[in-house]
Amino acid sequence: MEYIDGGVCAAKGFKASGIHCGIRKNKTKKDLALILSEAPASAAATYTTNLVKGAPIEVTKEHLKNGTAQAVICNSGIANTCNSDGIEKANMMCKFVEESLGISENDVVVASTGVIGQPLDVEPIKNGMDELIKNLGDNSRDACSAIMTTDTVIKEVAVSFEVGGKKCAVGGIAKGSGMIHPNMATMLVFLTCDASISPEMLQKAVSADIKDTFNMISIDGDTSTNDMVVVLSNGMAGNETITADGEDFEKFKAALNAVTKRLCRMIAKDGEGASKLIVCNVTGAADTENAKKAAKAVICSNLTKAAMFGSDANWGRVLCAIGYSGADVDVNKIDVSFKSEAGSIDVCKDGMGIGFSEEKAKEILLKDEIEINIELNSGDKTATAFGCDLTYDYVKINGDYRT
Amino acid sequence: MEYIDGGVCAAKGFKASGIHCGIRKNKTKKDLALILSEAPASAAATYTTNLVKGAPIEVTKEHLKNGTAQAVICNSGIANTCNSDGIEKANMMCKFVEESLGISENDVVVASTGVIGQPLDVEPIKNGMDELIKNLGDNSRDACSAIMTTDTVIKEVAVSFEVGGKKCAVGGIAKGSGMIHPNMATMLVFLTCDASISPEMLQKAVSADIKDTFNMISIDGDTSTNDMVVVLSNGMAGNETITADGEDFEKFKAALNAVTKRLCRMIAKDGEGASKLIVCNVTGAADTENAKKAAKAVICSNLTKAAMFGSDANWGRVLCAIGYSGADVDVNKIDVSFKSEAGSIDVCKDGMGIGFSEEKAKEILLKDEIEINIELNSGDKTATAFGCDLTYDYVKINGDYRT
Repeated sequence: MEYIDGGVCAAKGFKASGIHCGIRKNKTKKDLALILSEAPASAAATYTTNLVKGAPIEVTKEHLKNGTAQAVICNSGIANTCNSDGIEKANMMCKFVEESLGISENDVVVASTGVIGQPLDVEPIKNGMDELIKNLGDNSRDACSAIMTTDTVIKEVAVSFEVGGKKCAVGGIAKGSGMIHPNMATMLVFLTCDASISPEMLQKAVSADIKDTFNMISIDGDTSTNDMVVVLSNGMAGNETITADGEDFEKFKAALNAVTKRLCRMIAKDGEGASKLIVCNVTGAADTENAKKAAKAVICSNLTKAAMFGSDANWGRVLCAIGYSGADVDVNKIDVSFKSEAGSIDVCKDGMGIGFSEEKAKEILLKDEIEINIELNSGDKTATAFGCDLTYDYVKINGDYRT
Repeated sequence: MEYIDGGVCAAKGFKASGIHCGIRKNKTKKDLALILSEAPASAAATYTTNLVKGAPIEVTKEHLKNGTAQAVICNSGIANTCNSDGIEKANMMCKFVEESLGISENDVVVASTGVIGQPLDVEPIKNGMDELIKNLGDNSRDACSAIMTTDTVIKEVAVSFEVGGKKCAVGGIAKGSGMIHPNMATMLVFLTCDASISPEMLQKAVSADIKDTFNMISIDGDTSTNDMVVVLSNGMAGNETITADGEDFEKFKAALNAVTKRLCRMIAKDGEGASKLIVCNVTGAADTENAKKAAKAVICSNLTKAAMFGSDANWGRVLCAIGYSGADVDVNKIDVSFKSEAGSIDVCKDGMGIGFSEEKAKEILLKDEIEINIELNSGDKTATAFGCDLTYDYVKINGDYRT
């Protein structure tokens, strides 16, 4: 397996496009994306657990019931959520794709991201379809930039791998930034693959994968209304179709995970206003559930996040977060260390403070990728959570998002 | 019942004192408080639910087992948490009170607040005892200022009321600001009362009270390690002792609630970095638990808090928070309005956006006390939660708290 270029266009038979159609006033910001597979693909997805759901979620769920899809259309700027005509508008977006490309609207995945509760005007989308289709090509980056909201960097990843002697690729694009919290498919992630795999096994793979990847990210503790992870796998690699557990399925899952894990880090690092990626590794847990609870609580703690922003080795806040996480841990066995490319430093042993060089700690915490490593000394289970620091810019971005 | 001056000294027989003893380097900031009752008092308390607990919590729990106490000693600056000699130091603080005042160390409540994991030097406390005791008097404000950390205003409240024909008073001081989150006794609150009431009924009153008061506050979602609410009631009002439910107990609870509710608002409004008090009222819920979940989620949402900071009527974030709150609600029945002294404005009806004047909304949200009113249209149960906005200053204060 190796990382390759191409994002959602790395897999055979996938093209992408991203344009400015006019949903956003700013003409330099793309706002409409399309991903198309030459052939109908097995499709699987996971969605937000928020009771308030964007209309596109409902429509996509319906369209993916048969496990097949061929295209993804997504706009940014308006979430199409809490609108009385939301379903109608989401259906219209799928219809535009049907009319333009001759594929059934039932094979279209639709997604929206942006402000909640403002009506979506689909005229710009309708009028933009010609340009959107004209630009279909090896344009994963354009599609990615069109689904971005407050994201500051493109997030695309792809890997090549082999299944049954056939070379395959899986790639993806993601948008993240704000309203991102564990325990659901958090954010928009579109993954494409050319392996041949049944819809059931594809769903099994993605459902398992997100538990340790996208569900372990938190930017701000707010679970979005519109988020989904969708994967299309069109079989054009020509491998024998994966229909059951086994070596091929394991290879497929490993490749998928190589993509999703990296996208996770990119999403967390580019959290709204973030200046740093924070990765919390919990080891030595009695069980995985406890490890996850502890790791997530640390990543979600505003106080810990603010301390990381200030490069302040305030490990007491880490202990505090573990203590209220709901994890069943023996607090008198907890060791904590901070790590970055500048080195590693132990700051807490057996739940108590130990002497350490504040200078060295500062040096470590000034880097832009920080690991908070927690050893619970109670077993051999582990978990990793991904987050970012809490900064002035988070407040600024969200103090007046709508204007 | 009426609000009166005096804080923890409003009730008969209570004196208080607050000094700078030297735990803090800044000599203008008081760091040691004492509250003393002339007579032994019925005592009850609730504590943080964090598994990581400050040593003073353990010692106080032990001392209150018999339901009696006569004094409270509390330092700020150092939390005395995650220290290997924490229990020993907390015991020493009680011993100092015993030696200075001739009351048993078992009748002393001890509390600490400040940085976690740094050793507490008790020498300054020992050396400060003479001055602390010399200053005992009608000095509720001094005691309050000595327990403050990042608080910016004094929080003291008292009311007078009548039980069994006897005039009584109940008053309290509180410190809040950061690491404050629902579902526990959040922050330090010391309440004094001169009514005669059994320890059992006192505990019953305080345990019931905090469910709708201190457990409904969130500043930052972080549950502290050191927090407690303690109430001492010394019986000096001369009423017939309250030993069971009934009219007297109801009067007592009402007076207690008049104090705690107001302290809640003060704590929330003075949250770290806060520029606004946010009160979320949920009405029309099918049951109280759902109402509480929804109200708390809104108050805790970083995105909603940041929007309030920006006076941005981004009600979609309110809906979003209700949607992930875990409350069992019909999202298509939710109405939302914003209210302040500048008026009230409806922004969402039946879960959908409605047209409203952005100008009027801005005017309302620019005030420093905002109500977010949510009608679920599904029953007659209600809940109120107290919080504040998320500001640049929160990040600033917590980016480098320890220096």
